[in-house]
Amino acid sequence: MSSREEFRKEREQLNEIVMQYAGKTTKRFFNLDTNVYKDGALSARTKEMLGLVASLVLRCDDCITYHMNQCLEENISDEEMDEIMSVGLIVGGSITIPHIRRAIKFWDENK
Amino acid sequence: MSSREEFRKEREQLNEIVMQYAGKTTKRFFNLDTNVYKDGALSARTKEMLGLVASLVLRCDDCITYHMNQCLEENISDEEMDEIMSVGLIVGGSITIPHIRRAIKFWDENK
Amino acid sequence: MSSREEFRKEREQLNEIVMQYAGKTTKRFFNLDTNVYKDGALSARTKEMLGLVASLVLRCDDCITYHMNQCLEENISDEEMDEIMSVGLIVGGSITIPHIRRAIKFWDENK
Amino acid sequence: MSSREEFRKEREQLNEIVMQYAGKTTKRFFNLDTNVYKDGALSARTKEMLGLVASLVLRCDDCITYHMNQCLEENISDEEMDEIMSVGLIVGGSITIPHIRRAIKFWDENK
Amino acid sequence: MSSREEFRKEREQLNEIVMQYAGKTTKRFFNLDTNVYKDGALSARTKEMLGLVASLVLRCDDCITYHMNQCLEENISDEEMDEIMSVGLIVGGSITIPHIRRAIKFWDENK
Amino acid sequence: MSSREEFRKEREQLNEIVMQYAGKTTKRFFNLDTNVYKDGALSARTKEMLGLVASLVLRCDDCITYHMNQCLEENISDEEMDEIMSVGLIVGGSITIPHIRRAIKFWDENK
Repeated sequence: MSSREEFRKEREQLNEIVMQYAGKTTKRFFNLDTNVYKDGALSARTKEMLGLVASLVLRCDDCITYHMNQCLEENISDEEMDEIMSVGLIVGGSITIPHIRRAIKFWDENK
Repeated sequence: MSSREEFRKEREQLNEIVMQYAGKTTKRFFNLDTNVYKDGALSARTKEMLGLVASLVLRCDDCITYHMNQCLEENISDEEMDEIMSVGLIVGGSITIPHIRRAIKFWDENK
Repeated sequence: MSSREEFRKEREQLNEIVMQYAGKTTKRFFNLDTNVYKDGALSARTKEMLGLVASLVLRCDDCITYHMNQCLEENISDEEMDEIMSVGLIVGGSITIPHIRRAIKFWDENK
Repeated sequence: MSSREEFRKEREQLNEIVMQYAGKTTKRFFNLDTNVYKDGALSARTKEMLGLVASLVLRCDDCITYHMNQCLEENISDEEMDEIMSVGLIVGGSITIPHIRRAIKFWDENK
Repeated sequence: MSSREEFRKEREQLNEIVMQYAGKTTKRFFNLDTNVYKDGALSARTKEMLGLVASLVLRCDDCITYHMNQCLEENISDEEMDEIMSVGLIVGGSITIPHIRRAIKFWDENK
Repeated sequence: MSSREEFRKEREQLNEIVMQYAGKTTKRFFNLDTNVYKDGALSARTKEMLGLVASLVLRCDDCITYHMNQCLEENISDEEMDEIMSVGLIVGGSITIPHIRRAIKFWDENK
């Protein structure tokens, strides 16, 4: 199983447990979280890039991996990926580097 | 060994190492950190909920697990736990979701 | 005009501008943000305390002031307020102190 | 003087003081910080949106204002701006709202 | 009144209000916060630099100003100050720049 | 293989992958990140302490381990290490404790 499939599967399993306990607020928030990345005035492609850079500067590995997966589906190129990472690196500083390392490894394995 | 016992044991072992090196400030801080959650004007129960939501929005898995353990001992219900998580989710946004996933898994295994 | 009224008025005026530009996601999120603090398995009183400590450790003055206002309406006592601040101080460290200073000043002026 | 001009002028004045003390690292970092937003595999327009959402979730008013200014020059529309803010709001939670309020006020005054 | 005196006075006044409400935890924490910067295995001078860089990467203007004041008393040179800021800038990224701007302005006015 | 060697090796391997994708900004930033810790007005020894405390309050385990390694090479003593951790603990609060635990374990194994 690729690191990409592994990530998806674990995420799905945990989401199922979350949903067993989730009240109205949690469920509605999860809906908003899905819908906010859909095509609108901005394309889904651009929004996934926004989600990725936000996840990078907030240094959340799971969120980074999730949006990298989406970027793979949006056919983001290697050069575009490097530039997204660069913006995050300059805004967020060297503290983002360990996350960039793990992110680029995931990218390299799955693209 | 349950995930709850495993967590406690590892925490204890690491605390022992920390205490071998700890000077006065570290030791006193650890005391404050224990005492701040004791019954006072607010009950220990309420304070553990405060500690949990603070840990969630600061996105610290170990701190979340610690306070979840305490919440188990304070007989927090599933519905109360969902509402604590919901407040953290709304305040802290989707970046807290991976932590909520791991937290609810721990809750589900140990309650 | 008290600092409490001033805060409310400015917040209201800015919210009106936000709503002129707000799409569906923003509007729905604002609804969730209102509803999550309502009575449920946990009382509104407890939830406002959760919101306050979360705002304190994330160091957002406006959010702190907002929840302090709500705590005033929930008749939180001085001793309870000190204990909420203490939990936030221990979890979040000295970096929260400037926010505690401004918060307690607001509390002192408006309680 | 508009809030936009005021912002630019103060920023310029402070940068001059910073440069009087700046060594090689600071100067080179400032160069990188300018260059990273230039047209490349991604357009300057997209990069400014990335910078804006990163600034929003990290909750830095000055950085938000700076990138909003750049977005004005890139002819970002009201709908696009709302969607950038929405992504930041969902990722970063209600703690971003006070920054969104001030940002949208700036947008409303200067667009 | 210089910006340095103004800062000290306001801080003192607010601390007095905080102490009127402070319970045991808050008081003890304030003591630890004073003592941790005193001469020990590391000099007070080095510890103030540590406090300054920590405040910078956590982006707390009041904390930065406080430690800059202490650095002035420890006769930190302009070159040393630039290097402390540089480490913070590289670790924390461009998001620290608005804080560096305000910090260096304070330094320039008071050194 | 010691935890120290293991850390270095993994870091190196990941850096190689990062460099395969790195554009000019990323490469230049990595250079700045190396150079900022070199002897200047402040010694490399002091700068590594600054880097360590900054990494601790930002709660990045990899960054903490990296700077601990450098501190080992600069012959930082146990007492000095405890005082660096103490400053980070007081500034950053109990949320730093899980990172301190892992850091001191690494220190204990490798000093």
